[in-house]
Amino acid sequence: MKLKMMYPYLNADIALIEKELARTVQAEDSVIEEASLHLLKAGGKRIRPVFVLLAGKFGDYQIDTVKYVAIALELIHMASLVHDDVIDDADKRRGQDTIKSRWDNRIAMYTGDYIFARALEMITKIEDAEAHQILSHTIVEVGLGEIEQIRDKYDLDQSLRTYLRRIKRKTALLIASSCQLGAIATGAPSSVHKRLFWFGYYVGMSFQITDDILDFTATAEQLGKPAGSDLLQGNITLPVLYAIQDQAFREKVENLFVSTNPEKDITSIIDEIKGSDAIERSVDLSNRYLTKAFHVLEELPPNKAKTALHKIAKFIGKRKF
Amino acid sequence: MKLKMMYPYLNADIALIEKELARTVQAEDSVIEEASLHLLKAGGKRIRPVFVLLAGKFGDYQIDTVKYVAIALELIHMASLVHDDVIDDADKRRGQDTIKSRWDNRIAMYTGDYIFARALEMITKIEDAEAHQILSHTIVEVGLGEIEQIRDKYDLDQSLRTYLRRIKRKTALLIASSCQLGAIATGAPSSVHKRLFWFGYYVGMSFQITDDILDFTATAEQLGKPAGSDLLQGNITLPVLYAIQDQAFREKVENLFVSTNPEKDITSIIDEIKGSDAIERSVDLSNRYLTKAFHVLEELPPNKAKTALHKIAKFIGKRKF
Repeated sequence: MKLKMMYPYLNADIALIEKELARTVQAEDSVIEEASLHLLKAGGKRIRPVFVLLAGKFGDYQIDTVKYVAIALELIHMASLVHDDVIDDADKRRGQDTIKSRWDNRIAMYTGDYIFARALEMITKIEDAEAHQILSHTIVEVGLGEIEQIRDKYDLDQSLRTYLRRIKRKTALLIASSCQLGAIATGAPSSVHKRLFWFGYYVGMSFQITDDILDFTATAEQLGKPAGSDLLQGNITLPVLYAIQDQAFREKVENLFVSTNPEKDITSIIDEIKGSDAIERSVDLSNRYLTKAFHVLEELPPNKAKTALHKIAKFIGKRKF
Repeated sequence: MKLKMMYPYLNADIALIEKELARTVQAEDSVIEEASLHLLKAGGKRIRPVFVLLAGKFGDYQIDTVKYVAIALELIHMASLVHDDVIDDADKRRGQDTIKSRWDNRIAMYTGDYIFARALEMITKIEDAEAHQILSHTIVEVGLGEIEQIRDKYDLDQSLRTYLRRIKRKTALLIASSCQLGAIATGAPSSVHKRLFWFGYYVGMSFQITDDILDFTATAEQLGKPAGSDLLQGNITLPVLYAIQDQAFREKVENLFVSTNPEKDITSIIDEIKGSDAIERSVDLSNRYLTKAFHVLEELPPNKAKTALHKIAKFIGKRKF
């Protein structure tokens, strides 16, 4: 089942947001516009806008208001990817050249800045102080998560806790905010938007863990970039943290980081991770977050959006790419 | 006369803001905190906070409210400098190593992102939708200005208008917003904060033109970086635009851009600019903006802040570094 079949009644609104995303990044400067559109066209699941809209259904849903939140959240996510690719020196994302590889690091830095500024412009259409405070706090946290990602690179001594805090900052909080802000924008009561925050948080943790698993278990074709890219870039994810508890395997990873031919060496490392219990244990932790998400969801009033959120959460736990 | 002698009654508030700036950039991550503090300690005139506070005096001045605007505006300015130094590949600013030179481009990108995020967090303490809309629009414009600066580098065919639009975006709008938002934060009436915007805009234009003149007329010691740095980095400023109307001089600049020893060649170019009427014509345009600033100021109600703003504007027109 495809993601968008879980909320067919949102299709028109999602299409509208897609159109407005393209309109929002229009710029006088052709390089920036081209780079931004390149990024938009590379696609992505648009999971943040979907969460915003579905959460908006718990209040007095008006697409002309809630759309600003959906656009802002997707643009913030996009901007962070552009800067991420600079940090990771990544050439491919979703099967497309990254901005830093097609243009250069400076263009990537400013395209990110520009998209981010446009996002801020969008969110100011929502005249709600709490919404702005939640979002700005999230942005600080996302920034810290990105900084931690640089700091923790190649560090095999980092704890599970360090990993979890980093993915919370890098991924889960923005999804949590998407849910909460969608509900705030449509005037849903505080008890509802706070629960939606936690739903988004748990789903976001599961989402990122699944992403980190897929980096080893999916094919390059499914990923749109080589398998094992995270580890090649020095990003230590959950499956690796579990697998290096085996001392012999840990030494292999240490060798990978100083190898003259890492692209070759990664193949057997991927196979070993897949053959160990690291994947299973990672799936297990992902599932525990999902269970928490389902529990929070139970406390929300019943409606079509709730059913869709349930389906999406389930999909995230099972997705293969 | 020193800048801060023009508003002695603000000294305690300025000191408070200096302290809170340092507190705001505290981070769990030591590199980011060190880099941010390095930047803060490098100083600067803190002209944006000063404008915010003085403008705040036109309303019901409460330092505990208006300080958030002052901190936010200075942090946004600082963040843009960090990213600027990446673009310009600049090693020195205000006599100090830049972040990109002491650390690297990636640290500079994320330090900028982090400081900027902290700025957003500060501004959300001001619960005024108009303030947020003005600021986010300004941030988009600042971003466009930075992008234009890359695009227009080494382009000797750019018009005076291109230059003016660029410095409006890069500098004047943030000073204009500082004035306007300071007044909005203290509840000054719309007629007042709109005038303060224009006052800041004209002063900002004059300020940047003066900066661009000083790049040629001041000493390396006064500038905290080599004289002629702008031109060496390919940034075409007002004195250059005037001077290259002489074809022979234009060719010299073209040669500079392909020279194998530009640091040597710049010396005679600086001398020629200083010997031509380019500096005088630039000063003249700067003064025309100042005159406009004084006119706007006349329309504002009389108070101590107005007197200080007048003195600062005059100082900006005469400053030697």
